Amino acid sequence: MKVCISQLNSIVGNIDFNHRLIIKAAKKAVKDKAEVIITPELSLTGYPPEDLLLNKDFLKQSDFFLEKIAKKNLNIKIIVGHPVFVKGILYNSASVIFKGLISRTYHKQTLPNYGVFDEKRYFAEGNKSLIFNHNRKKIGLLICEDIWADEPLKDLEKNGVEIVICINASPYELNKRNYRLETLKKKFLKNNITLIYVNSVGGQDELLFDGASFAFNNKKLMVELPQFVEKTLTIDLDEQLTSSNTLQSEEALFRGLSLSLRDYLNKNNIKKVFLGLSGGIDSAVVAVIASKVCKNVEAIMMPTQFTSNESLMNARELAKNLGITYKVRKIDSLVRSINKTLESDFRGLETDITEENIQARTRGMLLMAFANKFNGIVLSTGNKSELAVGYSTIYGDMVGGFSLLKDVPKTLVYRLAHYINSQEEIIPRNIIERPPSAELRHNQTDQDNLPDYQILDSIIDLYVEKNLSVTDIIKSGFKAQEVKKVVKLILNNEFKRRQSAPGPKITSKAFGRERRYPITNKFS
Amino acid sequence: MKVCISQLNSIVGNIDFNHRLIIKAAKKAVKDKAEVIITPELSLTGYPPEDLLLNKDFLKQSDFFLEKIAKKNLNIKIIVGHPVFVKGILYNSASVIFKGLISRTYHKQTLPNYGVFDEKRYFAEGNKSLIFNHNRKKIGLLICEDIWADEPLKDLEKNGVEIVICINASPYELNKRNYRLETLKKKFLKNNITLIYVNSVGGQDELLFDGASFAFNNKKLMVELPQFVEKTLTIDLDEQLTSSNTLQSEEALFRGLSLSLRDYLNKNNIKKVFLGLSGGIDSAVVAVIASKVCKNVEAIMMPTQFTSNESLMNARELAKNLGITYKVRKIDSLVRSINKTLESDFRGLETDITEENIQARTRGMLLMAFANKFNGIVLSTGNKSELAVGYSTIYGDMVGGFSLLKDVPKTLVYRLAHYINSQEEIIPRNIIERPPSAELRHNQTDQDNLPDYQILDSIIDLYVEKNLSVTDIIKSGFKAQEVKKVVKLILNNEFKRRQSAPGPKITSKAFGRERRYPITNKFS
Repeated sequence: MKVCISQLNSIVGNIDFNHRLIIKAAKKAVKDKAEVIITPELSLTGYPPEDLLLNKDFLKQSDFFLEKIAKKNLNIKIIVGHPVFVKGILYNSASVIFKGLISRTYHKQTLPNYGVFDEKRYFAEGNKSLIFNHNRKKIGLLICEDIWADEPLKDLEKNGVEIVICINASPYELNKRNYRLETLKKKFLKNNITLIYVNSVGGQDELLFDGASFAFNNKKLMVELPQFVEKTLTIDLDEQLTSSNTLQSEEALFRGLSLSLRDYLNKNNIKKVFLGLSGGIDSAVVAVIASKVCKNVEAIMMPTQFTSNESLMNARELAKNLGITYKVRKIDSLVRSINKTLESDFRGLETDITEENIQARTRGMLLMAFANKFNGIVLSTGNKSELAVGYSTIYGDMVGGFSLLKDVPKTLVYRLAHYINSQEEIIPRNIIERPPSAELRHNQTDQDNLPDYQILDSIIDLYVEKNLSVTDIIKSGFKAQEVKKVVKLILNNEFKRRQSAPGPKITSKAFGRERRYPITNKFS
Repeated sequence: MKVCISQLNSIVGNIDFNHRLIIKAAKKAVKDKAEVIITPELSLTGYPPEDLLLNKDFLKQSDFFLEKIAKKNLNIKIIVGHPVFVKGILYNSASVIFKGLISRTYHKQTLPNYGVFDEKRYFAEGNKSLIFNHNRKKIGLLICEDIWADEPLKDLEKNGVEIVICINASPYELNKRNYRLETLKKKFLKNNITLIYVNSVGGQDELLFDGASFAFNNKKLMVELPQFVEKTLTIDLDEQLTSSNTLQSEEALFRGLSLSLRDYLNKNNIKKVFLGLSGGIDSAVVAVIASKVCKNVEAIMMPTQFTSNESLMNARELAKNLGITYKVRKIDSLVRSINKTLESDFRGLETDITEENIQARTRGMLLMAFANKFNGIVLSTGNKSELAVGYSTIYGDMVGGFSLLKDVPKTLVYRLAHYINSQEEIIPRNIIERPPSAELRHNQTDQDNLPDYQILDSIIDLYVEKNLSVTDIIKSGFKAQEVKKVVKLILNNEFKRRQSAPGPKITSKAFGRERRYPITNKFS
């Protein structure tokens, strides 16, 4: 029996485009003699549609295009994910379309409402399994979270299902691919069911879907589609294939970030990006990725008296290596003008963070002027470690339409840089080797204000991602003073993060929609 | 029977402070011979604690301070709202504390998970009513959303309850006070139950709780506590009181915004605020409110060549009327320096929105410098109409820690200004009467780019708040072209709103946590 796995990159809200994507994939599947084609969760509307689901026109349009797919009357069973209103109740559903008819519709029974998910805001839970017959085989249908719960699968097992199709929109996280596969293999250890797991692919604001759809049977992986690539592939369930696509974690991350940025730009019709090159590692990594996914990348180095020659040389060399447009615009005289405007107000007061922020904000202002004038966007280059502890200037280096490293801790930025250079020595070594510095005053380094990044990132990981208490983190071997300082900084900087640009979640707990902390909060 | 209604202003996360607040109120109630004191939903932790609820230390601290209240051994039944873990399951609960014991605990049965609410993210639903006896009266306990559902109240009725106590954290909306009261009166029309409805009061980030707690019986209002004031009041249920506190809507809004700002400042230990005075109506209204709730208000007028003399005079007069610090800092030369820095890059290109944004961003930069240097925050002065259609400069006039008019449409800003002047002629008339302008180029008015505000606000109301379709809005009498333009602007400006400062929800649908739209979205 031939089945087509179609990990599509739908666009949220572009139902017309998505329905054409599905039809195109189905036609290819027919040509490849597949009998069933499977598309991801909410493939028709894109995932997550968020409050568009409260819009009746949106739901009507979804119904309309679902019918249009049916009317194509293709000789294949097409499994489409879509929302549907039944008697005033909205479900997250999957329909089986065959020969002009929407023959069966399944309603997701397990709705995730944690982490990045808000499905109970929109949907009601279904309460019935769906089993359809094909070639005398019993096939059960599940949607995403259903397969992690117990009941839906048990019910299919009880009913003697031979194949389970699970359609998903499962966001990427570092190492989640292995976790998915191994956990599900264990879950299917005691049955002989073939699992076909189809995941969507693509970037959508703060989420990134990695594809990596797969099928296994008798504990053996039959096929795995690549991560981060839209792909429609027909496989024969009766043949024992084994193709797998395990990426090393840095390579996966690199490809994932690239897809996330590419999709943000393409899906929002953005043709040009600007970024500030500092000669540091964060902007270097962002520049590398931007240059891979966008033709028009303009890097602007905005030195002051505090900018080292090293930084200038590093930035120029990197831009040359990448073949991107590179400009140097000195901002000293501008910064002086601003300080002069404030001179009478600040007379007699010490120079402090204010003057550092002015430098960062001057850069933000110029970058935004470029973006406005040439109809592009600015990419923020800050990383997760900075954002966690507020080591960044709001309206300064935080300026931007997309923040690519928002969820990438500094130590992982280094690993990414090493990975990039292992493919092609493109980032000047000095960028990777020198101690990180914001260069906002003389001889400043990040470690003047922050613990060593190895320690900082470990504390952030334990506190934010692993949700450990301060006491437990200290017990695990960190200095009490350091832990308390870092946690306090994390709690006190929520106000900055609230105004930060969106960026892709890649860890198990990203700031943003996944970690919802009050700004006004006295708990510590 | 004497009952004490205590509409407290808890601070999210400051459980120690909140528990002292509750004890203090209970002591007062004892002195007033009350037999029961009722505090709001989650009075112990503050509402909404958001992801603090995922923190075990937070829950432990809540348990600890609940015990501490009990240990005070006060001779009164104290009803406290708090989260509680029972066998690994978290509930939104209310306990009856009496003579050193937490005698009974009710778990909220109806969890709101729409609009601003995410309760299903944290809590499980309770499934049992709680009825306790006091003075041979049967008293039932409900929490907020429970009373809007059918089952919990029916179950209490069936069990012959004579008094229903409902504790709430019900966010303020224009006119919601009347809606609450009238709808609940209807609901209690066919029974003889006394309802005691206790609501929290205070500002918490984007939410504002208005208090206005009340009790009614036999369709008659017995007492209503004031809106926007923390208050603990003992009433005798056997006496027929009638005290009500209906505020006109502009007065209520004025007091509500004042409380929201006051609490944001106080709860975050902010002692000083800066705002840009433009001579326009938005900054005027923000300045008036800021001057009422904060001792250190500094208004800065930052004129350019496009600033009219009228604006200068208006701003100065307003500041004088309010008795706030007022400075004029011309920014023309700074703006020239910035434009000069960009001259070679922009040569031959038309002047456009870029240069307008530079002016707004220069102002934002200076305001932030003041806030940084003097340890204060900037108040954003933009209104909901601007934010809806993106008629504002990100990192420019959108700069700020709190955006007081974020959910106030421009036409309502005018009504607020009239209300303010009806109390005391403090806003110079010319500010109210002249046509609104951003003054970013010669002879500019808002209506060069936007429909008349009456029309704009109506379309925003129908599209955003009433959730009507474009077709239905056009049918209701608006020009198709205008409706389409406005809706397109609303959809296209989500990226700006995502980076806007928090501000209080006052309508039935605020941007921010209540309206969750994707940035990347092709639906229109």
